[in-house]
Amino acid sequence: MPDTRRADARRNYARILAVAEEEVGAHGSGASLEQIARIAGVGSATVRRHFPTRRALLEAVSRQRIEALCARARELTGESDSRSALLSWLGDVVVYSASARGLAAALAYEGAGPDSVYENSCATKLEEAGEPLLRRAVRDGAVAADVTVAELITLVVGVVLATEGRPDPRGAAERMFRLAVVGISPAV
Amino acid sequence: MPDTRRADARRNYARILAVAEEEVGAHGSGASLEQIARIAGVGSATVRRHFPTRRALLEAVSRQRIEALCARARELTGESDSRSALLSWLGDVVVYSASARGLAAALAYEGAGPDSVYENSCATKLEEAGEPLLRRAVRDGAVAADVTVAELITLVVGVVLATEGRPDPRGAAERMFRLAVVGISPAV
Repeated sequence: MPDTRRADARRNYARILAVAEEEVGAHGSGASLEQIARIAGVGSATVRRHFPTRRALLEAVSRQRIEALCARARELTGESDSRSALLSWLGDVVVYSASARGLAAALAYEGAGPDSVYENSCATKLEEAGEPLLRRAVRDGAVAADVTVAELITLVVGVVLATEGRPDPRGAAERMFRLAVVGISPAV
Repeated sequence: MPDTRRADARRNYARILAVAEEEVGAHGSGASLEQIARIAGVGSATVRRHFPTRRALLEAVSRQRIEALCARARELTGESDSRSALLSWLGDVVVYSASARGLAAALAYEGAGPDSVYENSCATKLEEAGEPLLRRAVRDGAVAADVTVAELITLVVGVVLATEGRPDPRGAAERMFRLAVVGISPAV
């Protein structure tokens, strides 16, 4: 009986998290917890048992998406075109940051504050994941040798923060990031 | 006598504004109004008479700096190297935005909110001022024809927002902006 209950709890946790990911993607970090409970087919009390606070749920969503981005980086490291592998991954980071609008601020990890430990751990994971992609692109001459993953992610965070209030924030962030990729004026 | 008083008031206004500009540059939008009054050699009541709220003072500081950026754009439009003229002006916009840290958010003009009319007017002024610089750089092939001043300013705002909490926000923003100028990976 306790095993069944634990299995149920695990299923509920996974279902709530999956629904939360979609709802946060669609409505930002202010997504309705009641709506999430409803779609997941559980009661609000069950949501609260797994995620006592909105922040706990948002952190779980963010952690899951960061894990997915790390897995994607490992996948892309095997591709032959190192430039397009790096840019494809960074594009995913843009989409993640823009669709998780309210979470984008959490990615602005350099900011001091009570949340900085959590934010730093996310940033560190992303930086470590992106490192092999960047190293290969640098080796192939596609990116300058002195550029760091932290700087690339800072640029991503920047375009997302600067376009947050737009009617189509994701499209605007993607357009801005493309501009930063090709350069405003690369000729010297 | 009323004329003398008016002249005094004008002098006080200009002095408070000049001091406020330096203090906001050094300490951000939270700069101490008492300190500003002290350095300007006036009483707090005089500061309040000219600037009833902190926001009124910050807006005046911002307006003055925006005017200076517009004047600088007009100056640079006469220079022969259109690329360096545009980049030099954008560099000034980066420095302005980064040094006026708290004001940077006000420059994120696309955000909806009670302040958007004011923010839009600043953005419009900057866009109009940068337009001739951009047009010349595009004409000389230094910038792609489909890039807009609004996009360039959005990139500036982005690098400033993403580096706001750094130990050296201005240096970090300038480094990020240089990266966006030359491009992360301009080769196609």
